[in-house]
Amino acid sequence: MTKCLETFMKENAPKIDKTLHALIDELSIPSELKKSMIYSINAGGKRVRPLLVLATLDDLDIQLDDAYIVACAVELIHTYSLIHDDLPAMDDDDYRRGKLTNHKVFGDALAILAGDAMQALAFQCLTRTASLAPTQQVELIRLLSEASGAEGMVGGQVLDLEGEARSLSVDELEAIHVRKTGALLSFSIEAGAILAQLCDDKKGQLKRYAHHIGLAFQIKDDILDVTSTTEQLGKPANSDEAQNKSTYPALLGIDGATEQMYARYEEALDALRFLEKEDALLAQFAHYIVERTL
Amino acid sequence: MTKCLETFMKENAPKIDKTLHALIDELSIPSELKKSMIYSINAGGKRVRPLLVLATLDDLDIQLDDAYIVACAVELIHTYSLIHDDLPAMDDDDYRRGKLTNHKVFGDALAILAGDAMQALAFQCLTRTASLAPTQQVELIRLLSEASGAEGMVGGQVLDLEGEARSLSVDELEAIHVRKTGALLSFSIEAGAILAQLCDDKKGQLKRYAHHIGLAFQIKDDILDVTSTTEQLGKPANSDEAQNKSTYPALLGIDGATEQMYARYEEALDALRFLEKEDALLAQFAHYIVERTL
Repeated sequence: MTKCLETFMKENAPKIDKTLHALIDELSIPSELKKSMIYSINAGGKRVRPLLVLATLDDLDIQLDDAYIVACAVELIHTYSLIHDDLPAMDDDDYRRGKLTNHKVFGDALAILAGDAMQALAFQCLTRTASLAPTQQVELIRLLSEASGAEGMVGGQVLDLEGEARSLSVDELEAIHVRKTGALLSFSIEAGAILAQLCDDKKGQLKRYAHHIGLAFQIKDDILDVTSTTEQLGKPANSDEAQNKSTYPALLGIDGATEQMYARYEEALDALRFLEKEDALLAQFAHYIVERTL
Repeated sequence: MTKCLETFMKENAPKIDKTLHALIDELSIPSELKKSMIYSINAGGKRVRPLLVLATLDDLDIQLDDAYIVACAVELIHTYSLIHDDLPAMDDDDYRRGKLTNHKVFGDALAILAGDAMQALAFQCLTRTASLAPTQQVELIRLLSEASGAEGMVGGQVLDLEGEARSLSVDELEAIHVRKTGALLSFSIEAGAILAQLCDDKKGQLKRYAHHIGLAFQIKDDILDVTSTTEQLGKPANSDEAQNKSTYPALLGIDGATEQMYARYEEALDALRFLEKEDALLAQFAHYIVERTL
């Protein structure tokens, strides 16, 4: 029987939340540091990355308790990056998802340190997956460090900051997003494939899927920034345009960006054909990404 | 024949430098990010932590090429922590070891990101140690993430920042240093023990050694801050007193602090007895730590 993505999300998001809380709560650390870490973990994230880990596994018909820990490792990296990106020295954002950003509540020093601690915790989690073979653990750690580091997410943020000063081509924009958001989304899906011990050929198809939904995700973000209200976004709408940022709608127009997004969507679906499943969760995920209003 | 620590350092420090450079240089990353990372790697560190990894292995009569990579992982964590600690939001230092701090040269945003990237690279390195068993790799990653994270180095920095506002007891001071600097020094020595596949009993002795030299190291740092000139330190002398920081000399007097330091030194030497070596490198290291003038 076909699983419904919405049901899948509703079932799994609370388990992800619970695991994230437990991972931080069990730490013997200064109370302000714990509060700061918990605050950002609770800041209303949609848990897209951890849910992608779990959805990939589900589509491959694998059940594995340690998948929740792996899923949380990605979310910890994602959350740390948001805390650091919001800092005055970076994007200088006061609000995210309608809540004050970490540094507005806890100060810049603690925000930097909470982010640093979350990064370390992400790698620590991956060593606590007793049901996995050590070679799987090492492979996950290698891929997460690559996806989140200088060649991945951090490098993408550097390119993004550099790009603010000038107008970019679509190719340059894509190069930023492939690193800044794409690398971690790709990791989420590859992590599922590693947990399922998938062969390289099928893993390659999932990576292709990940590449395209990563870009579709970003194009959708850019479109939402133009078409949503500040209230809907939980942060100032039209902020990209106000900051003169290069975005897909700015470069291609809303129609061109939408077309591009659906082309990515079709490519992503095509990559999933090897699953031989009607309504695979990952296919529904791709649909969710392009149709979401938030 | 007894090895001389000075010769050992002169032989190995350049190899550590070379490995660190290679690890960063081979990355395909934005050039400013690479420059920023290389700048801090070149900022004149004494390579105490990586040399401790190598000295531990040497005292255990083990030769292992991958030890250099493990040694560099610790130095990357140490270097990232210095970059973040120096930020205006934290200690706000303009100089370190006589050179401008990273954010003074590259700006706050790039300094934050270079630090973040170095942390990821440290864990990445540890997955690239092909001569180790995957269980050893996972154990090293687990220990490094613990030593550098919220329960270790980052937590120590939080306590340190919180402690600035009030005067601390010697116990509170020790609790800070055990985390802030001790955890990473301990990791360095434990890493050597893991690489050498040492039994738990001997590993325990090395951890005891590490605990005591960690504290001796910090007491010496505090003493040097009082007794050195700005020129010798490469940063303002007497800065602790000027900032009203709790230090060992402030709490115990110079004589009391010196006595405490030598007590730690003796404990450290005692823990090394199982090596059954005259002039073990680690014993010489302990001596170097308490006698250094920089």
